Order: sequence, then C-alpha cells, then structure tokens
Amino acid sequence: MTALEIQGKAAKAASRRLAVCSTQEKNAALLAIARALESQKDRILSANNVDMENAVKSGMKKSMQDRLALTPARIDGIVDGVRQVAALPDPIGEAVSMVRRPNGLIIAQIRVPIGVIAMIYEARPNVTVDSAVLCLKSGNAAILRGGKEAFESNKALVDIMREAIAEAGLPADCVSLVQDTSRESATELMRLNRYVNLLIPRGGAGLIRSVVENATVPVIETGVGNCHVYVDDSADLDMAVSIVRNAKCSRPSVCNAMETLLVARSIAGRFLPMLKPALDEYSVELRGDEETQAILGSCVVPATEEDWATEYGDYILAVKVVSGIDEAMEHIARYGTGHSEAIVTSDYANSQRFLQEVDAAAVYVNASTRFTDGGEFGLGAEIGISTQKMHARGPMGLRELTSTKYIVYGSGQIR
Amino acid sequence: MTALEIQGKAAKAASRRLAVCSTQEKNAALLAIARALESQKDRILSANNVDMENAVKSGMKKSMQDRLALTPARIDGIVDGVRQVAALPDPIGEAVSMVRRPNGLIIAQIRVPIGVIAMIYEARPNVTVDSAVLCLKSGNAAILRGGKEAFESNKALVDIMREAIAEAGLPADCVSLVQDTSRESATELMRLNRYVNLLIPRGGAGLIRSVVENATVPVIETGVGNCHVYVDDSADLDMAVSIVRNAKCSRPSVCNAMETLLVARSIAGRFLPMLKPALDEYSVELRGDEETQAILGSCVVPATEEDWATEYGDYILAVKVVSGIDEAMEHIARYGTGHSEAIVTSDYANSQRFLQEVDAAAVYVNASTRFTDGGEFGLGAEIGISTQKMHARGPMGLRELTSTKYIVYGSGQIR
Repeated sequence: MTALEIQGKAAKAASRRLAVCSTQEKNAALLAIARALESQKDRILSANNVDMENAVKSGMKKSMQDRLALTPARIDGIVDGVRQVAALPDPIGEAVSMVRRPNGLIIAQIRVPIGVIAMIYEARPNVTVDSAVLCLKSGNAAILRGGKEAFESNKALVDIMREAIAEAGLPADCVSLVQDTSRESATELMRLNRYVNLLIPRGGAGLIRSVVENATVPVIETGVGNCHVYVDDSADLDMAVSIVRNAKCSRPSVCNAMETLLVARSIAGRFLPMLKPALDEYSVELRGDEETQAILGSCVVPATEEDWATEYGDYILAVKVVSGIDEAMEHIARYGTGHSEAIVTSDYANSQRFLQEVDAAAVYVNASTRFTDGGEFGLGAEIGISTQKMHARGPMGLRELTSTKYIVYGSGQIR
Repeated sequence: MTALEIQGKAAKAASRRLAVCSTQEKNAALLAIARALESQKDRILSANNVDMENAVKSGMKKSMQDRLALTPARIDGIVDGVRQVAALPDPIGEAVSMVRRPNGLIIAQIRVPIGVIAMIYEARPNVTVDSAVLCLKSGNAAILRGGKEAFESNKALVDIMREAIAEAGLPADCVSLVQDTSRESATELMRLNRYVNLLIPRGGAGLIRSVVENATVPVIETGVGNCHVYVDDSADLDMAVSIVRNAKCSRPSVCNAMETLLVARSIAGRFLPMLKPALDEYSVELRGDEETQAILGSCVVPATEEDWATEYGDYILAVKVVSGIDEAMEHIARYGTGHSEAIVTSDYANSQRFLQEVDAAAVYVNASTRFTDGGEFGLGAEIGISTQKMHARGPMGLRELTSTKYIVYGSGQIR
C-alpha cells in the first residue's frame, strides 16, 4: 500500500466511527479543537513563519503572501469559526421525509454522512481548519491536501486538531494531512476511489479543471465565477450604480465579484457616465466594446473576445452595451460560469424572465452578486460554492456535506 | 465536430427550451408519445423482430433474448408507463426552501432541470422509453445510448418519440439516440463534458465500472446489488423464512434480490432446516460455509471467498453462519455493495443498531430487500437505483433528476 492508501484506509475506518457518534461527542471534539488552537498559537505562528520565509525567498506575489500569512487576530478568527460550527445544528439523522406506505412499511429518508471527504486547495491555511471542522460536524472524515507553500502551517494546524480530537475520545484519523505535496500525490488522491467518497477542490480555474479531468472519485466543482450584472432599460440608475460598485469593488478577488457589466443600449448613454466616477474611486480599469468606448472615451481599453471569458479577480471590469435582456442573457449563457448573475430592472416581466431563464447557481434581481455566500444565505458556514448541478449547487453548508439513506421499518412485509 | 458533438449540441439547445416550458407543454408531448407508440405498434414490433433474428443468429442467451423481446402486451405496458409519468407532479419550480433574510433579501431555492442527461444501457428496449419520458417530464434532454443488440428496436422507439415531440411543438432533440453503438462512442459520450450534465449507466457491474473509470462527466452509479438478509438470534423464524424466500426467489435477476443469507449461530440449527423446503420449491442452489454444510448436509456446495462477493442474479444463495449482529454487519461492510440490506429480528436494540450502522441505500428491519424500488417507495417511477452517495441514493424518481438554483429577490441590497 502507498502512504496515501494507508492514510485513506485509516480515514475510512475513522469515518465509520464518526458516522455513529452523537452530536455531543462531535461538539466536544470541536470545542477541544478550538481550545487547542487558541492555546497553541505560538506553535502555529512559528510554523507559519517558516512558510512565510520560504514565500519571500521564492518571490511569492504580495497578494498570495497575504493569503498565506497568519496573525494572532487571524487565528482568533479561525477559532471563532470553529466555535460557530460547534453551535450549528447537526444535520445527521434529520429526516428528509418519512411516509407510511399502504402495506404498512414505514420508510424514512434520513441524512447520513458521506464518509471520507478529500479537499485539494491552495495556499490559505484557514481552509485547513474550516474544512476539517465542517467535515467533522457533518460526520465525515477529512483528508486535506493543501498547497506546498502552506505546508508547515497546515501541518501544525492538523497536528493540533488531531491531538485535540484524540483527547476528546474520537479517532485522530478523522482529520489528516497529505504529507506529500507533489502533483503526483494530488493525482493519486483524485483516484483513490476505494477510500474517498467525495473530492472538493478549492482554488483557481486551473486546479478545478485538472481535478475534473483526472478524478475518478466524485467531485464537486467550486468557485470559478465569471459573474455578470445586467442593467436593464428600466433600471433605477442610482440603484444600478450602487450594485455595480458593490459587486465589482467590495472584494474583487472573490468568486462572487462581478467581472462583466452588460448595459441596455437605451440607457447606456446616461448610465455609463453616472457609473464612471463611482468606479474611479477604486481606480477600476474598464475594458469596453466599441459603444462603451464611444460613450466614455479613451479611458476605456478596447475589450477583446478574451475579456468576456476572463475572471479578473481584480479592479478590472469588462463592459458591453447590449440591445436588451435577450442579448444580455445570450451573453451570459455563452460566457458565464454558472455562479452568480444579476439584473437591475424595474420591469416585472424582465425580472421573472431573468430569474427563470438564466442558468446559474444564484440569480439576482436588484441585488449585488456578492451575496452568494453560505453566511449571507443563512447556512451558518460554507465549505465552498458549487458551480455544478449535481448534489449541491451554490453555497455548500453542513447539509450539502451529507448523503441520505432510506431506513425501512417492517413487520414481515414481502413483495 | 464529431457526430456525437453535433448531437450533444442539439440536445443542449433543446434542453434550454425544455427548461422553460410549462408542465402543460411537457405533458402534451408525453401524451403524444403515448398515442404514437400505441398507434405504431407494428413498426416497433417489426424493428424488434430484426433485433430478435440477429439475437438468435448470434446465439444470445435465452434470458437475454427475453429481455430484448417486445410483444403487443409489453408495448401496452410501456405506453401505460408513459401515461403514468404524464400524471405525476412536475418537480420543476418546486421550492425546496424560501427565506427572508434580515436585510430583506428573499432567497428561494427552487428545483430546476439538470440539462442534458445521457444514459448508457444494455439490451432492454423499455429502458429507452422509460428514460426518455422521465427526462422529458423533469425538463431534461436525453441522449440515449442503448446496446447494439437492441439497436433497431431503440431506433424505432426513438424515431416515434421524436416525431411525437415535434408534433407537440417541442424540439425533437429533447430525445435522441446515439447511432454508433461501438465502444468508442460510449467512451466519447462519457467525456462529452461540454454538452452532457449527467451520465447514468444502467447495466451490469462491468458497464458501471467502465463508466466510473472513464467518465469525466458527472456520473450516478446504479444498480449493482450484493444484498444480504441477516436472521438475528431473536428473529421470528416463520417471518424469516417468508422474507428470505421472497428476497431470493420472487425475482432473482433484479438488483434488490438477496444474494447472501447470514444466520445467527444460536438459531442456525433450527432455522436452516426450516428454510430449506421453502427454497427447494424454487430449486435454489445453496453455497454455504462449513457450519451450514454441517447443518444441512451434502446438498450444500462449499462456499468460496468469491461467493461472498458475487451478485448471482440467479436461484443461488450463499449462506454463512455468524456469531451475531456484529459479525453480520462486518460481513456486510466488507462484501456489500451499499444497495439493500435487511435484518430479521425481534430485538429493539439490534434493530436500531442495524438501521444506524449499516451503510447502504436502503436498510430494512423485518421486510424483504425486494422493496427497494421507486414504485414501492412511492416515487411514482424510477430511472434507476443509485448505489452511490452523491446527489441521489436509492431509487431515483423525478426529483432526483433535478438540480436547484437560488433565486434572490432584492430591492437594491449591497454587501
């Protein structure tokens, strides 16, 4: 057996124990994790320090360094997150339905854990703890494979969590870290069907594509967001300025930020000049089609075909003038990634058409795309945002980390 | 573009139209299909005749020939099935949840179609119609790739359905048949990520394994069933005889039939001799461990390791004497395929443990495993039985052929 197979087997065994343990036992382990992370801050910070030194040496981008860095305040935030998950209701055992059939069989469909969930992600160490505790709460063992840039940080975090879990009386193997951060270990994990029930990649488009192409275990694609806001002929233009500014500028690096603005031709000449100063506050670079250039002048970089398909994750906005809702929806169908799409409109029929016809995880009327988030949707926490249609779509909370089984109470029925 | 890509693209376009059409439009198409199949029985029967002649020539097994054969009565059964699906409630548009958030956003999670569903299956032409109409009712376009043995039958059925759909005003490409029945076309279909949203294989273990290994599109595994009945120390032995006989003999070729009987040691000496005459009525071959052989004598074929892992699909039953519920559940965890598992018991604690700890799509107390079926569970119809944990588990009806999307009603909210 390879090292990863041994790890998978141990996780599988731990998952069987976890599947039948009570909410109290799981919460005790979560609170033990919170206490341990809190009391061993120094150990975490010094491990993170090693990663940060390597990052500086290897010339990592500043924005990436910021994602990698841990501080006492950030650790406090992580610990708060663990306590919040402990406080959430346990989805396991909840009945989705329960019926009594004509023959007297009582058939209940109840939520059960999925089993072993593997995560492949990049350089953010907070994902390590978030993922582990959401899996634990939902009764799943977690196999975590973070990026090599964050290895020392992840190792410290996982070691502390494993010690706390064992101390709380559950198997340490409920959470484990893949020690080998080579590309080969990622590929092996994607094909570990015997032990892994679900793989969730979190990261850029390249990682997601590689997982979809190579994985033989079930996968939930997350997070790639080429999101649009369409400003309709009938839009309240002040509201549209506010929504576009928020969707683009409040946090451009995240997946629910907007990337392309579509504007109805009849109002483009009035709206774009109104919008421009709001975006200028954030020095947003505009990449526009010819009509946008004609309206706003030479400050607009001519957009290429590639711009329509790009998730900038930055203070850059593509802008296109369209004839109306039909062209807007066609553009979205062609270039969207099925994440979050918004219309700003005062027209009832157009709002209904947009909600019904646009095919995305979250479709908005008169609100910012930035709301696509487990916390904002009231799920309490999220392990990622699914942009696929199977199993879960949109923000994934604890329920989305469960499967179901039918339990059937009989009294001798035969068919 | 390859022929299959052209077909995929057409199905995708049809699925977009289907996604927004009303229940009335879909039902009109379904009833048109029912009428067309009814009035063109001769066309179907003569196409089936070609397949049957080829089957005889190529020396197809009798049991397979029986699955392939259509008769006027079987076509009536298929047509009845179509009308039943038309009468089922439409799952599309149903709200799974709807909440008003503190900021005034109204967030509804509603059921939407998945898009394009591909089916790969073997020689039963009724699967062609069943699958097509369940997909249509749930707003999904279907790409059907049946076995080459049934090609002429499938072609006639699909041509008739396409004509009826077009006549009812929907795109004919809502349903299409893969014309190339080579292994290569199956592999291409498994990797047609651009157009296929979900692939459901229906067939033997070899087909399912090939799909899981080769597919890059999302897959729902179906149907492999190595099902067990465990007769506990405290079982009502008359009930146990009735359940075992039913689970093994009522239809041994289907996936919810039992394959291995586990008997608690303390009652094996009384129970097995009681059971024997009931199984003798069906000439069931017994393959037992040493204790079973000692109890029942030389009529028992010695079981090998392979027997515990085999889905016979026939009048053969593996029998093992176990020390009690723990050994029974260990055996099931090791050899079961996660389909249907049953305990016969009068002991409350053991019934609860079995329901909770056994990891399968359907777990029974005091009832036959044969009930794992969409109709029996009250789903109205089924497209297959999922033995995996993602998206759907157990019998899959119309709801399991849907995804969801969040629709969000705002009034200018920003984050």
